[in-house]
Amino acid sequence: MAASNSLSLLRNFASVTALATIKSSRGIPTNFTPQTQTRGFHFRRTLFRMSAINNEEAAAQAAAADADSGAPTIFDKIIAKEIPSTIVYEDEKVLAFRDISPQAPVHVLVIPKFRDGLTQLGKAEARHEEILGHLLYAAKIVAEKEGILDGFRVVINSGPTACQSVYHLHLHVLGGRQMKWPPG
Amino acid sequence: MAASNSLSLLRNFASVTALATIKSSRGIPTNFTPQTQTRGFHFRRTLFRMSAINNEEAAAQAAAADADSGAPTIFDKIIAKEIPSTIVYEDEKVLAFRDISPQAPVHVLVIPKFRDGLTQLGKAEARHEEILGHLLYAAKIVAEKEGILDGFRVVINSGPTACQSVYHLHLHVLGGRQMKWPPG
Repeated sequence: MAASNSLSLLRNFASVTALATIKSSRGIPTNFTPQTQTRGFHFRRTLFRMSAINNEEAAAQAAAADADSGAPTIFDKIIAKEIPSTIVYEDEKVLAFRDISPQAPVHVLVIPKFRDGLTQLGKAEARHEEILGHLLYAAKIVAEKEGILDGFRVVINSGPTACQSVYHLHLHVLGGRQMKWPPG
Repeated sequence: MAASNSLSLLRNFASVTALATIKSSRGIPTNFTPQTQTRGFHFRRTLFRMSAINNEEAAAQAAAADADSGAPTIFDKIIAKEIPSTIVYEDEKVLAFRDISPQAPVHVLVIPKFRDGLTQLGKAEARHEEILGHLLYAAKIVAEKEGILDGFRVVINSGPTACQSVYHLHLHVLGGRQMKWPPG
């Protein structure tokens, strides 16, 4: 699926970069792979977990370079249906579709169709309150449609240290499992 | 401080309950403490981590019993200033104050002063869009005031499996450190 491929390419690039960074910052040769070490399961699991965590951080850092450019993002193509996505809910103002890298049995992104300067929540102005309210209400509708109204979490990342990787405001709606604390 | 004490009492009660539950569910005598075991640091750290995680889950489960009662919560006393809190931002519609159990260098809660049925996001109706939008915009104002506009995360927990422990809608605003992924 084109959507998956494009996003996967981005993520895979970030993964390679992040792993190289991890290895380098820890003095691990870059030709070292977790499979070659012999210090047991815990070390491998820890390295794998670090890799997964840092992939998102690296992707967010990489994306931050374009944060203020106002350049189109992959979400524009998803909104235009030029890239397919699994749509969960849609109205004239918002689109909700499944995250291709789900962090819970239900993981849906809710975005405004018209970005209107909302590259991130940190750019919100008073005039955006109407769409912000509608996005949150749409998150509730998504939870209802997905059968997770009894328990769901909404997350908005603003900026690289919050792991924002696409500069078009989006709400994550997660549920279908026990969510943990702290929230990342 | 009365606010801390009241909330701490709630949390401490949940902690004791949660730890007893963990011990019981794992066949650990309830008079067993992490300090008495001899299986090393990893076990202690794991138990401590489980305890911390399950405290929040247990607190959320306990609070869920009153979710639909519409009973006043501790936030009503904070809004009425009967219980002191460290207020970060306030206007006629919302109040933002520091979480007493911060999960990041900056951790602020943003709540509507008038709950109006919004015990949780899962109860939102179309008529709530205005206050929902204002709450999200207030989260941005809080981030600005706290100096974390370059990176912050907003989290809304709805229901027990999302770790909601007070049934008065509240937004968590977290920042001042690298946030991780997944978000709990």
